[in-house]
Amino acid sequence: MRLTVDSINQNVRRAQYAVRGELAVKSEQYRAQLAKGDTSLPFKQVISANIGNPQQLDQKPITFFRQVCSLLENPQLLDREDVLVNSLGYKSDVLDRARWLLKHAGSVGAYSASTGVPVIRESIARFLERRDGFPADPAHIYLSGGASAGVNTLLNVLCADQSTGILVPIPQYPLYTATLSLLNAQCVPYNLDESKAWGTDIDTIKAAYDKAKADGVDVRALVIINPGNPTGASLSEADVRAAIDFASREKLIIMADEVYQTNVFIGKFHSFKRVLRSMQKKTPAKYDDVQLASLHSISKGMVGECGHRGGYFELVGFDTEVEANIYKFVSIMLCSPVIGQCLVELMVNPPRPGDPSYDLYQREYSATHEGLRERAAALHRAFSQMEGVSCNEPQGAMYLFPSIRLPQKALDAAAAVGRDPDEFYCLRLLDATGICVIPGSGFGQAPGTLHFRTTFLAPGTEWVGSIVKFHEEFMNEYR
Amino acid sequence: MRLTVDSINQNVRRAQYAVRGELAVKSEQYRAQLAKGDTSLPFKQVISANIGNPQQLDQKPITFFRQVCSLLENPQLLDREDVLVNSLGYKSDVLDRARWLLKHAGSVGAYSASTGVPVIRESIARFLERRDGFPADPAHIYLSGGASAGVNTLLNVLCADQSTGILVPIPQYPLYTATLSLLNAQCVPYNLDESKAWGTDIDTIKAAYDKAKADGVDVRALVIINPGNPTGASLSEADVRAAIDFASREKLIIMADEVYQTNVFIGKFHSFKRVLRSMQKKTPAKYDDVQLASLHSISKGMVGECGHRGGYFELVGFDTEVEANIYKFVSIMLCSPVIGQCLVELMVNPPRPGDPSYDLYQREYSATHEGLRERAAALHRAFSQMEGVSCNEPQGAMYLFPSIRLPQKALDAAAAVGRDPDEFYCLRLLDATGICVIPGSGFGQAPGTLHFRTTFLAPGTEWVGSIVKFHEEFMNEYR
Repeated sequence: MRLTVDSINQNVRRAQYAVRGELAVKSEQYRAQLAKGDTSLPFKQVISANIGNPQQLDQKPITFFRQVCSLLENPQLLDREDVLVNSLGYKSDVLDRARWLLKHAGSVGAYSASTGVPVIRESIARFLERRDGFPADPAHIYLSGGASAGVNTLLNVLCADQSTGILVPIPQYPLYTATLSLLNAQCVPYNLDESKAWGTDIDTIKAAYDKAKADGVDVRALVIINPGNPTGASLSEADVRAAIDFASREKLIIMADEVYQTNVFIGKFHSFKRVLRSMQKKTPAKYDDVQLASLHSISKGMVGECGHRGGYFELVGFDTEVEANIYKFVSIMLCSPVIGQCLVELMVNPPRPGDPSYDLYQREYSATHEGLRERAAALHRAFSQMEGVSCNEPQGAMYLFPSIRLPQKALDAAAAVGRDPDEFYCLRLLDATGICVIPGSGFGQAPGTLHFRTTFLAPGTEWVGSIVKFHEEFMNEYR
Repeated sequence: MRLTVDSINQNVRRAQYAVRGELAVKSEQYRAQLAKGDTSLPFKQVISANIGNPQQLDQKPITFFRQVCSLLENPQLLDREDVLVNSLGYKSDVLDRARWLLKHAGSVGAYSASTGVPVIRESIARFLERRDGFPADPAHIYLSGGASAGVNTLLNVLCADQSTGILVPIPQYPLYTATLSLLNAQCVPYNLDESKAWGTDIDTIKAAYDKAKADGVDVRALVIINPGNPTGASLSEADVRAAIDFASREKLIIMADEVYQTNVFIGKFHSFKRVLRSMQKKTPAKYDDVQLASLHSISKGMVGECGHRGGYFELVGFDTEVEANIYKFVSIMLCSPVIGQCLVELMVNPPRPGDPSYDLYQREYSATHEGLRERAAALHRAFSQMEGVSCNEPQGAMYLFPSIRLPQKALDAAAAVGRDPDEFYCLRLLDATGICVIPGSGFGQAPGTLHFRTTFLAPGTEWVGSIVKFHEEFMNEYR
């Protein structure tokens, strides 16, 4: 038979992933047009605010990391220590780290063990111990090609069939719903509370869980994204504790997506692992059975190395035989990219005070963090002044998720061309300004509300001005 | 509920992937023991002949490739052209290529387009045109994280449900059966003919296809691995033509796994794309509808960069809407590693005669190719002299797949410990020598036959001697 869209895997057909969908594709076409010298467009550059892709915009790689990577790629350079140090300014800790990684990981061109290079898993465990103040065991740490691959692995193992349900926050990063579609399992949505800075409300989660159970869904896991994507919310320790308590009571696995753990601007990041271990220490009998998978990545934060596809997840409380199946699953794809694994090592074990590369590292890290905070605040201020737009204060992650109220005429105009109103708005924004943001419908939103997600990674204020101007004209047009 | 091996996704539980299974895990434990100074083992090193992992053993990366990668990782080095050229011996074409890739791909730390960096897809198309003498369109080329990720993508889209069947050669690389298990689709096995150098016999394929169809299986695709894994066979043009003709008649999609296309020692590689286009040119009406997916990778050949996870597939004759769904599927994981994509570009567009880096490139490439040919021949000679062992002459790929006939007492001893005889043999080999090979049952073999797969990547002759000695002792023990 000839393969058609009607005969392919319909789970693939049903899956939706707006972050790289129609708008993103159209923006890339605009980019190609501009590159070819096309001057017919009403803008001179495309701003990809659709995806957290720091180095595509303005974020610079951390020098120490990339110097080490250059030596891992060409170890012959290590024979010319004099040139590296005297002519190229490589510090001794750069050379030491590269030699250590090459000694223990071997060539970055060779497959590693499927769960990752053993010494890198060790380094991650030591990092988790420093971060949380509780022991971590490398045996339960799995390197992955970005956190996305980790989510994919976990959901593949967790989802037995179409009766399996996973509690997913709404709005959410659409990797979750897309993967559940591919597995023909069920997303059990629970709404985040926009009126409370997109916080996690246990009563809301419980209601969603009870309803799904009553419908015969075998709810197995609770996904929490903290700091939140697309919401930018950063959970309080009490919120984290409440989620663990609920998961413990209902015997749900917790999937803690913590890839934005260093992108925090207000308050403090509270890792699920630390809070869980604290609760277990206090009342052991009660929480000993909790199963937690927490994920991290080199893609975000001040590292921003998403193109290198590195990440890991740590498992707590999983059965040995289940872990053996997780191992088998990841082994089929052999291993995650080894240079990405090395970047995970560098992320969790950066230069420390007194190390030759520390000062530069610290300067670069702080400048990026401060830059993101300022950009978030500037964008938030702009949104606060736009008619019909409201937006929670940015607490973390790389996104703002403003709510927009559009005039009835705009809703009618969208309906007339068969578009959701937020999609209609975002398409118009792209066509007018070259700025690509993603409609709220791509992440899920409460009925009757409209949003869009934008990163705050782009530099300068000109593009923010373009959004403000577009919005004003759009509102006037449909008033 | 608590997640147990009985409640996880049973498709994962059923999947088998011997290449990184029990034997490989045990060999890594031995390696760790040796590294800790353990002298109780009867061998001094572990030889991982279980997996085609060239750079873990002896294969050196190609200097030009890695020099370019070092600059992609640390573009600041390009500001010191004098040092690079005068002190470090980087040739001008290394700098030019790095600048060109950085200009068009951007930072290797940024996500690329989901199907890959546009100019890299262009480079691949030009390579395919030079290789095949027929046009290639970048729009139908998809970068992937190794060919494994490409196979995963294609099977995910192809397999609609459990009635879908895919024709897979036996013996095969177990990625295919493992992925079909994960998708709960059916492997329709067809045996390769050991007596004819592991060739592809169309009557055998047809018989397997007819039987599956009669059983109600919706057979959709024909997998061909050429050169063969684990068999090392290299197909003649007539064999390729016959496979295309059969697929055309039965409207089967062809999945041509051509990752070993440069690992050819006898005869010549015939790409499915070239042969298909030739057939279409000759008799257009007949073959115009053929759908072909052909896969390639940076992991094998003289490149051997498997740790970088790079590869691509090209589609011919697929529906636009099907391709849109393939795009969506790969976009969920965002993109393949960008440095791996750059290595794909370097592989398909290496230095040419007259380029400053050409001579060194050519020397390194030839030395690796010649080394592999010699090792394959030496191992083949050793197998030829071993009692009860027979092995086809190595034509391509990185493997030999000898057949072994074991004494009845050995079969009984295996049964007594609940092992397949080939598994029993391979475990004993590992325990005695530290050499890890994979039993034929991990790839599939005709009933009543026993095999193992070994790479011929390890240097020297000592390990070959160890296999010969072990085999003699094993045969004597069970005579």
